[in-house]
Amino acid sequence: MSLPPLTARAQDIQPFHVMDILARARALEAAGRDIVHMEIGEPDFATAFPIIEAGMQALRAGHTHYTPALGLPALREAIADFYSSRYGVEMAAARIIVTPGASGALLLALATLLGRDDELLLADPGYPCNRHFARFLEARARGIALGPASRYQLTAEAVAAHWQAHTRAVLVASPANPTGTLISSEALRGLYGTISERGGALVVDEIYHGLTYGCDAHTAAAVSDEVFVVNSFSKYFGMTGWRLGWLVAPTAFLPALERLAQNLFLAPSTIAQHAALAAFRPDTLAILEERREAFRQRRDFLVPALRELGFSVPVLPDGAFYVYAGCERFSDDSMALAQRLLEEAGVAVTPGVDFGSHQARHHLRFAYTTGMKRLEEGVARLARILR
Amino acid sequence: MSLPPLTARAQDIQPFHVMDILARARALEAAGRDIVHMEIGEPDFATAFPIIEAGMQALRAGHTHYTPALGLPALREAIADFYSSRYGVEMAAARIIVTPGASGALLLALATLLGRDDELLLADPGYPCNRHFARFLEARARGIALGPASRYQLTAEAVAAHWQAHTRAVLVASPANPTGTLISSEALRGLYGTISERGGALVVDEIYHGLTYGCDAHTAAAVSDEVFVVNSFSKYFGMTGWRLGWLVAPTAFLPALERLAQNLFLAPSTIAQHAALAAFRPDTLAILEERREAFRQRRDFLVPALRELGFSVPVLPDGAFYVYAGCERFSDDSMALAQRLLEEAGVAVTPGVDFGSHQARHHLRFAYTTGMKRLEEGVARLARILR
Ligand SMILES: Cc1ncc(COP(=O)(O)O)c(C=O)c1O
Ligand SMILES: Cc1ncc(COP(=O)(O)O)c(C=O)c1O
Repeated sequence: MSLPPLTARAQDIQPFHVMDILARARALEAAGRDIVHMEIGEPDFATAFPIIEAGMQALRAGHTHYTPALGLPALREAIADFYSSRYGVEMAAARIIVTPGASGALLLALATLLGRDDELLLADPGYPCNRHFARFLEARARGIALGPASRYQLTAEAVAAHWQAHTRAVLVASPANPTGTLISSEALRGLYGTISERGGALVVDEIYHGLTYGCDAHTAAAVSDEVFVVNSFSKYFGMTGWRLGWLVAPTAFLPALERLAQNLFLAPSTIAQHAALAAFRPDTLAILEERREAFRQRRDFLVPALRELGFSVPVLPDGAFYVYAGCERFSDDSMALAQRLLEEAGVAVTPGVDFGSHQARHHLRFAYTTGMKRLEEGVARLARILR
Repeated sequence: MSLPPLTARAQDIQPFHVMDILARARALEAAGRDIVHMEIGEPDFATAFPIIEAGMQALRAGHTHYTPALGLPALREAIADFYSSRYGVEMAAARIIVTPGASGALLLALATLLGRDDELLLADPGYPCNRHFARFLEARARGIALGPASRYQLTAEAVAAHWQAHTRAVLVASPANPTGTLISSEALRGLYGTISERGGALVVDEIYHGLTYGCDAHTAAAVSDEVFVVNSFSKYFGMTGWRLGWLVAPTAFLPALERLAQNLFLAPSTIAQHAALAAFRPDTLAILEERREAFRQRRDFLVPALRELGFSVPVLPDGAFYVYAGCERFSDDSMALAQRLLEEAGVAVTPGVDFGSHQARHHLRFAYTTGMKRLEEGVARLARILR
């Protein structure tokens, strides 16, 4: 009498190392230690009040049933309008699929693109879930080692050099996690040309759009109607816990994406969708722009402070809320260093090993998702043990 | 320059035929026709007020960040307590994983059990997403043809007869969709014995628990700690649009399930989780029990009325809110019949073909998710065209 063995898929999917850091940080806090959290990948701000209020109104109105699998038509329209007003890109609302977070959008898009043993090219370092989505789908992710020379972003040349018979898609994030760098419009166009010539698909994760400092991001939706664009209400819109995102998809893929969404999710959260209708209102956007300014100030404090401490930050991050910092001066084992910083300095950070394997042991990710006072405190504590 | 072909997975996943019925019903309504909806798979009631209120309070308190991937510890405790108070089954809260709906729970559980080309046995007729989850995972679902003789439920004998080298798991729903029948504790024990002897896993979908009439369902969690039990806040708790469910899993599978949940979902909806904390309160349960009584009355009206019209309902459904009715007297093409009932009678129902292939063209599913007056109206309209 026994259970079957775990599937190879389930065995292969790795935990996030930062979870050990987080668990240890919570244990230290429970024991009375004060911890500066620079490992958290979400805004510290609660959701902006106009969105909260719209959510409460939806609840009062009894909007608690399933919505259509692709989302509320009004929300899909509102998102399409946002592409028009923010980016000057016109698109049919029919191309917008509302999903349970960017997570849901990535799973859907990749499920239509990656069959068994097909290959996805992506950046190393990069967001860890992406390679696990590929593994989940019985496909393969191949990380391309990237460094400061290409601002940690994929290039057409790198993609061409790594393209293989089974390569089907390329995933880019801009601004990227963990590096915060943007990819330029020209580079995107070059990438798209190289990929589409080879019969592949380009998927661009724009979840950190809106969180760029001193510059604006251009959407990949402007490059071609055949680019898959992933976005979310989680980061700029500050709605992580609501679990709502979207996918802009090529028209030819919509029927299949709808079937997949129906079966996998039934529908995205109704309350979140009603609340998100308030996300594009001018009063909401005014609050979000204030927060963006707060993030900019934090970045402008943290990057020089980390350099001063001896971390290497060869490229100024354009956006997101992360600094991917080389720690080669202190350790060649980023996980051990993260543990040491937590135990000795009470500062929690994410080890590079969560983001891939290229130079991962020589990097830490610092998130500036806590207020200036706490960032200053964190830096002061690091100075005490590292200098 | 072209996109890659759709994956075989995405091609194989079928749409729900009822979506065409629903779309046509909406079009008729837009043109001024009155339609009686007996195709909808969710309670007509809005979420009970204590749950709504808890959701609003969570929003007011700013509970809008990610929760742990497995859910809020307090909610996992509350669910464990519910197994104790409702079923007399004690279990560690650690075994409970909060998910985005039963949909999320099914995807997680099956992803740990079904590797590529592995086989899942399930009931035909049955809930359509299940075979698509298997296909999504590059595994196979094999429907076992079931009829009234076994009350549409799998038996140990049927499972033994269909077991193959690649069979890894068996999925049972009790009460079932579309048939509403329960599986007895003894039958569950027999099934579990047969499956575990063969090194397989038993997954039991209990999403319609609480919606049984004149009888109570026993949980498969009482059979063994190694059964995977899926449940949801959607149906009895009336929270479909909130997207919240759970999985009770064997201890050995928890680390892998947590890794999968982290990567696929990040976390379930925070607002929904806070709201669901109010789902088990006595004042909420009192409301839910009133609604259960309303569903019982509807069933007790609808089953004899359908029989009277000439539909065959050989087994009285114990629960859920469906009647799976043989329509052989009227048609051997359930989709065509469903279309005719919609056009001529203004009554929307789900064709049997959505639930499998066994006798599917000879069945319709009637959902009693609308009030008595509307059910009476629907039956009167059907009488006019069928008699
Ligand atoms: C690059 C990137 N993509 C996608 C996600 C998923 O976010 P969500 O599912 O909350 O939209 C994250 C979350 O941290 C991320 O960093
Ligand atoms: C048998 C069965 N299982 C699972 C589900 C999924 O429900 P949810 O994801 O809303 O919990 C449904 C929905 O209709 C169902 O009928």
